[in-house]
Amino acid sequence: MDLSFTSLGFASALPTVDRFPSAHILNVCGRLFLIDCGEGAQIQMKKFGISMLKIDEIFISHLHGDHIFGIFGLLSTMSMLNRIEDITIFAPIGFKKILEFFMDNFGDGIEYKIIHHIISCKQPEEVFSNSNIVVKAFPLQHRIDTYGYIFQQKEHFRNIIKEKINEFSINIDEINVLKSKNDVIRKDGTILEWKDVTYEKFQAKSFAYCSDTRPFPELYNWISGVNLLYHESTYTEDMKDKANKRFHSTAADAAICAKKAGADKLLLGHFSSRYQDLTVFEKEARAIFKESYITEAGKKYEI
Amino acid sequence: MDLSFTSLGFASALPTVDRFPSAHILNVCGRLFLIDCGEGAQIQMKKFGISMLKIDEIFISHLHGDHIFGIFGLLSTMSMLNRIEDITIFAPIGFKKILEFFMDNFGDGIEYKIIHHIISCKQPEEVFSNSNIVVKAFPLQHRIDTYGYIFQQKEHFRNIIKEKINEFSINIDEINVLKSKNDVIRKDGTILEWKDVTYEKFQAKSFAYCSDTRPFPELYNWISGVNLLYHESTYTEDMKDKANKRFHSTAADAAICAKKAGADKLLLGHFSSRYQDLTVFEKEARAIFKESYITEAGKKYEI
Repeated sequence: MDLSFTSLGFASALPTVDRFPSAHILNVCGRLFLIDCGEGAQIQMKKFGISMLKIDEIFISHLHGDHIFGIFGLLSTMSMLNRIEDITIFAPIGFKKILEFFMDNFGDGIEYKIIHHIISCKQPEEVFSNSNIVVKAFPLQHRIDTYGYIFQQKEHFRNIIKEKINEFSINIDEINVLKSKNDVIRKDGTILEWKDVTYEKFQAKSFAYCSDTRPFPELYNWISGVNLLYHESTYTEDMKDKANKRFHSTAADAAICAKKAGADKLLLGHFSSRYQDLTVFEKEARAIFKESYITEAGKKYEI
Repeated sequence: MDLSFTSLGFASALPTVDRFPSAHILNVCGRLFLIDCGEGAQIQMKKFGISMLKIDEIFISHLHGDHIFGIFGLLSTMSMLNRIEDITIFAPIGFKKILEFFMDNFGDGIEYKIIHHIISCKQPEEVFSNSNIVVKAFPLQHRIDTYGYIFQQKEHFRNIIKEKINEFSINIDEINVLKSKNDVIRKDGTILEWKDVTYEKFQAKSFAYCSDTRPFPELYNWISGVNLLYHESTYTEDMKDKANKRFHSTAADAAICAKKAGADKLLLGHFSSRYQDLTVFEKEARAIFKESYITEAGKKYEI
């Protein structure tokens, strides 16, 4: 089942020549989730050949400009492309007045419904679910109300191993029971165990987004076992004081989080504009967690 | 005296892979005027090596998103770059609530003053002047309240031709009179004509910005004799009906305007996203006005 991540931008507050503000796409079986929407998100989508009409859900971490100033342009363009399907924006409570301002001033002609799903939680909380995926929000620790998100593929029914059907004369009713991970107890007392006669169709994968935040230990459990982790690393360790003061993380903080959470892979992003050479982040993180990488805009990361 | 124009973007409503929304820079002796501020304006400035801290005045044509969605990002970034100097934004009355919304929601930490100079006129009206330039606003004819701007260099005092000083024994007081384009009548009745003993330091030049608008004849007089004209041409003539309906111009309309106004050169912009090959605009316009050119982003047009 397709699950891939593409970043449109990962600058921190100040964009640079080649780093757009925060905005990312998670592709779940062809439907796209937009995660944050910094200025220029729609332009980057054009550049990378990503169709904004495949987006039905937008997940906003927090209401700092570099994470949302692209939303007005995106919503306007969707309207001009004749969108009629509802769109749901998951965002903190403060987004209400931003949306009202937008609709009052630029909402003329918008034929689709914009639903604001308010995010407010102190522990991980399920906020969205469809047949393929569950999304949970969890609080981060930034200067304002901020949330991370974890996207977890659902485990599907298992498949029956074909040879076993003949071997044990398994009937249709029994197949359905076994695929749902239940054993079958036959009238003669014999037991068919689901583990013996079924196999997993695919390995359910997960992706977590943590930006912006200072490091805090509860987070490790909340994203435990995640396959791909995008974690902010605004600074390197030599600027730890600044990171602390501004409620941001260093590359080392991000790597510790990936390690403690047992992640497979870490993508570093949200770099301060003061850094031109980004390899310093990778180097710092890899000393702690080997599978650390600088995010590349437009690259498709299969999960 | 330096006067040059650089476009940051000239897409119409929908940006394309290589065309950002409307935003342009007029460089007047090293100070920069920003004209419109579509999404991504600050990113384009970075790309083209243009310092946003040299901008003290912003001229907004109208309040459609593709002309102003970059303003929040720009104002925020200016603040993060520690701007303290006032900035003046010339814009229609409706900009008031946009600015209020911005300050209420994203204004924390902004140390500089943002002055909204309300543009509202039915005829050309001077809205700004400094030692180098006069800016006049004039009404355009679009679906909402929209204004064009003409930037006219001031004619400076003339210089005395050195050889004439000895020839006519011209004294300091007389020099000042002559430089101000006044003749000197001496006690003996002889007349020193300023035209004979002075020369023009430089030719005062002008630039006009007309976007968005449908064509209308009063405009030709208002920008008469302009050196460089940027005029919208959203469509070509085969889509004249659509242009009329949406209060836009075709390339031919823009060319007629340039011709009737006696412009030196026409830059075409604000192209609909439906056009991939822009040479059709140039071709259509040149049949009417030879000095017609497609705007190129980042190119410095000396005026």
